[in-house]
Amino acid sequence: MCLNELMRKPLGSKKKAKIWAVKNNTVRSFSDTVATEEPLEIRLVNPQQTAAITMRTPGADFDLVAGFLYSEGILRQRDDLRQISYCVDSQIDGEQQYNIVNIQLRAGLVPNLYTLERHFFTTSACGVCGKTSIEALKIRDVKVIPHDNSVKSEVLYTLANQLQSAQKIFASTGGLHAAALFDFQGQLLKLREDVGRHNALDKLIGAAFLADELPLSNRIVMVSGRSSFEILQKSIMARVPIVCAVSAPSSLAISLAEEFGITLVGFLRDKRFNVYTNLKRIVLS
Amino acid sequence: MCLNELMRKPLGSKKKAKIWAVKNNTVRSFSDTVATEEPLEIRLVNPQQTAAITMRTPGADFDLVAGFLYSEGILRQRDDLRQISYCVDSQIDGEQQYNIVNIQLRAGLVPNLYTLERHFFTTSACGVCGKTSIEALKIRDVKVIPHDNSVKSEVLYTLANQLQSAQKIFASTGGLHAAALFDFQGQLLKLREDVGRHNALDKLIGAAFLADELPLSNRIVMVSGRSSFEILQKSIMARVPIVCAVSAPSSLAISLAEEFGITLVGFLRDKRFNVYTNLKRIVLS
Repeated sequence: MCLNELMRKPLGSKKKAKIWAVKNNTVRSFSDTVATEEPLEIRLVNPQQTAAITMRTPGADFDLVAGFLYSEGILRQRDDLRQISYCVDSQIDGEQQYNIVNIQLRAGLVPNLYTLERHFFTTSACGVCGKTSIEALKIRDVKVIPHDNSVKSEVLYTLANQLQSAQKIFASTGGLHAAALFDFQGQLLKLREDVGRHNALDKLIGAAFLADELPLSNRIVMVSGRSSFEILQKSIMARVPIVCAVSAPSSLAISLAEEFGITLVGFLRDKRFNVYTNLKRIVLS
Repeated sequence: MCLNELMRKPLGSKKKAKIWAVKNNTVRSFSDTVATEEPLEIRLVNPQQTAAITMRTPGADFDLVAGFLYSEGILRQRDDLRQISYCVDSQIDGEQQYNIVNIQLRAGLVPNLYTLERHFFTTSACGVCGKTSIEALKIRDVKVIPHDNSVKSEVLYTLANQLQSAQKIFASTGGLHAAALFDFQGQLLKLREDVGRHNALDKLIGAAFLADELPLSNRIVMVSGRSSFEILQKSIMARVPIVCAVSAPSSLAISLAEEFGITLVGFLRDKRFNVYTNLKRIVLS
């Protein structure tokens, strides 16, 4: 069953999340709003094939699909697009039903999918909904990260400044993301940078892998910018118990952190931060 | 010919770029530093196959490759990795030689590449070096964007605040990127948001496509965050003459803007901005 073009915002772009806001060693719990993150599959019909799967914030999904296919040179003029619709499988539960968009091109338009496939990039989403993504990690036998020890809030306060000071490249270009590894006493152990936040974290984990220092069970990871599905997925694989970010997490980042026992910290700046999951690892000074 | 692991930083993570800094309607030209962006191909040998292609900042390439394969579950322990090396084709010119990393897994380790392939995401890089990426657009017969008209610096000054004010979701989640469309008088026409900057731009261009408003020849695009290869590639396809960002561009974004005639603006905040290419479209008030 396919829905028509009028139904454009079936999934919300925001979700509520329970958070603990820590400021000057006092904690306050409340409900906050976070940006939704869910996978979207772009599916061409006749013959049916997946053109792309991308993580996105629901809302304006048809715009996203049309824009993506236009950027890739598949669509060149408005008439090239015959129909765009959600394709809902009644077997799938409600929240997951709007993660597939079907595209019907005008008769005779045969997209150069060889080219499109060459343009595929790497990241780590599985399936076409957030729950599937989490299930896929479980199927790979990824276990929950145990709660072995705690970190003092005073230690967390220092991380953002340490990250910034260590980012020498950042200072001269203003254009690089960073991922840093700390121990539970707040000592900076490694830092890697990249134009891509997920690349910076891959570099950090890869450096630990090459030095045979994995798993990172007694370590804290801090990333510049926000935390998304990818950041959490990589941290879970490396068994990092505490993940901090300068900015906000997505809904799926929070779900993954919850599911796999990670303490997820956001908006870590000066004497304050928000905790989204597993507050138990943090001791207020 | 493959190089050994000791040669780890063949490509620089920074490049020099000539910029024009505009502040309070005065312009100053100087040489600035920008972050390098180049594609990296991760290639498995025996049998030879591409595991992934990703845009990255050169430097710590072996860390990046090891971390990526670890996150994907291909590498699980240090011994799984037998050899990691650059593989240099003597037919390729110097700067492009370090964009392929060869990985030899331990004997008997057969990676689940079906799984890996399902994890591939979409973006728009072509080939394995920045120059190839630019060539690929030329092969698709993408033309240089003509210089038809100009914008006043006073108009540009207003865009960052307009973007921020219009980001209602951003205000409540702090977690979304935005892409906005303006006319040359600085009027905001459309805005789209997403956890991913490239998705926000796809949504913006897709909305214009669906409304049959392409090409965007008399429009300005502004994105939150930085401008990368992807942002420029999408803007070129939509024929946007002026692309502005709140933060810095990558080296490849600048190359693309130069090659296809886009005016690329960065660090656009209040009464100042930097221009990286095609200053001619900007009139100082």
